[in-house]
Amino acid sequence: MEEITLTAGQHDLIYNLISMTLAVMGGAFIFFLASMKRINRKHRASMIVSAVIVAIAGYHYWRIFGSFESAATMLEGGGYAFATEAFNDAYRYVDWIITVPLLMVELVLVLDFKDDVRRKFIAKMSVAAFLMIALGYPGEVATSTSAVLLWGTLSTIPFLYLLYVLWSEIGTAIEGESDRVKVLMRNTRLLILATWGVYPIAYLAPVMGFEGATALVVLQVGYCLADMTAKAGYGVMIYSIARQKTVEEGGVTERVEVATGGAAAVPE
Amino acid sequence: MEEITLTAGQHDLIYNLISMTLAVMGGAFIFFLASMKRINRKHRASMIVSAVIVAIAGYHYWRIFGSFESAATMLEGGGYAFATEAFNDAYRYVDWIITVPLLMVELVLVLDFKDDVRRKFIAKMSVAAFLMIALGYPGEVATSTSAVLLWGTLSTIPFLYLLYVLWSEIGTAIEGESDRVKVLMRNTRLLILATWGVYPIAYLAPVMGFEGATALVVLQVGYCLADMTAKAGYGVMIYSIARQKTVEEGGVTERVEVATGGAAAVPE
Repeated sequence: MEEITLTAGQHDLIYNLISMTLAVMGGAFIFFLASMKRINRKHRASMIVSAVIVAIAGYHYWRIFGSFESAATMLEGGGYAFATEAFNDAYRYVDWIITVPLLMVELVLVLDFKDDVRRKFIAKMSVAAFLMIALGYPGEVATSTSAVLLWGTLSTIPFLYLLYVLWSEIGTAIEGESDRVKVLMRNTRLLILATWGVYPIAYLAPVMGFEGATALVVLQVGYCLADMTAKAGYGVMIYSIARQKTVEEGGVTERVEVATGGAAAVPE
Repeated sequence: MEEITLTAGQHDLIYNLISMTLAVMGGAFIFFLASMKRINRKHRASMIVSAVIVAIAGYHYWRIFGSFESAATMLEGGGYAFATEAFNDAYRYVDWIITVPLLMVELVLVLDFKDDVRRKFIAKMSVAAFLMIALGYPGEVATSTSAVLLWGTLSTIPFLYLLYVLWSEIGTAIEGESDRVKVLMRNTRLLILATWGVYPIAYLAPVMGFEGATALVVLQVGYCLADMTAKAGYGVMIYSIARQKTVEEGGVTERVEVATGGAAAVPE
């Protein structure tokens, strides 16, 4: 079993960042659920999906935390022995398989696509997301540089396709929205591009000359920061769009139907 | 590995105070969520943020509790051997990195800043809070007095800036509020000043002549008391402001859209 040595600083950085990501996902979950009533019903679906995404990610970070803890053993002379094979990084891939299609769904819901456009978009995006993640995993666990590059390249094709469709569809959806909503949507688009760009960079850490402990640190720090932003931060952006639309609709309103006229009997 | 000896009294004081803080955060979480419906929708955002803050702090105190427990070993002759390196104090810093900007957001939301003022304020405060905490951490884990003082001084600059902006912005926001709300806002401002002042004092414990076990006690007791007040207590103050505003608005009102027509609209 391969074992690498982490300095106390390297160990603590990863350890605390995994815990921080778990805390952020939990906090975001509470925020999305509690904020539901501050937006009009018709925009709430995207908030529900946001809550589901961060709950699933929170679960996986709880598992990753446990896995990281049990793979590390404190050394007598300081630092940690880390059994890389005992650390299950597949939790991340399982998480992405579930949550990345949901991130697309969340976006579509807040963008108010027409029914037929929406169905096509979700189908295309889900297939692309699945291919992207499934093709990336063999490269993540590969030990040879050529395998990392091969699977990385294959995974990049659906990834670029996904970003391209996202970019152009958001561009189309923006038309007809108020100026404030437009700004928020453009910012969301930039946030997606910036955070999603971190994943391939972290993925490539082993072939960019980083080795052993350093590669582990770059990979884990990159994934944690990207997950926090791409899930919780992105969810907050989606919330801002939904909230702004609600404000423009005159605030949260409840529809009440009142029976008038002769037939006034209202069944319970 | 550095080990210090705690008397049973010192150990129990920290142990029980960490547990107490965890209980207070949990209780505050329930209070903020359950009280939501007693204030008008437009003031609820600050309550939601309060709930998120104490939930995240509760999570961290749960981790701190576990970490403290596993770092202490009961000695045959009474008292405890405490492995300082096994006690992860970074949980506190991670917690502050997330929650201090949220405490600012919470305040801004209840103060009803105008949109552009609010955005600027949050941006300024978040940067200052991040710098304050990030610059403080190296000093917290430093072993030499000069390093503690250097990082402490660097961290104090954004800290003072933050307090100054807070103080003056609250002063401006107070104008135009009712007398009762004014009093509550002034008290909140004093509470911030009083509790936030505890953090640097606790931080300086190791250089104020406190050593080993005593330094640990001063640090942990100070942080626990400050966290309870600055998060749960502060949240209750924010709640009081939101509730007072609701009362002045004539109680909780819901916006209702009424659908009427010639033919009786009968609900299902």
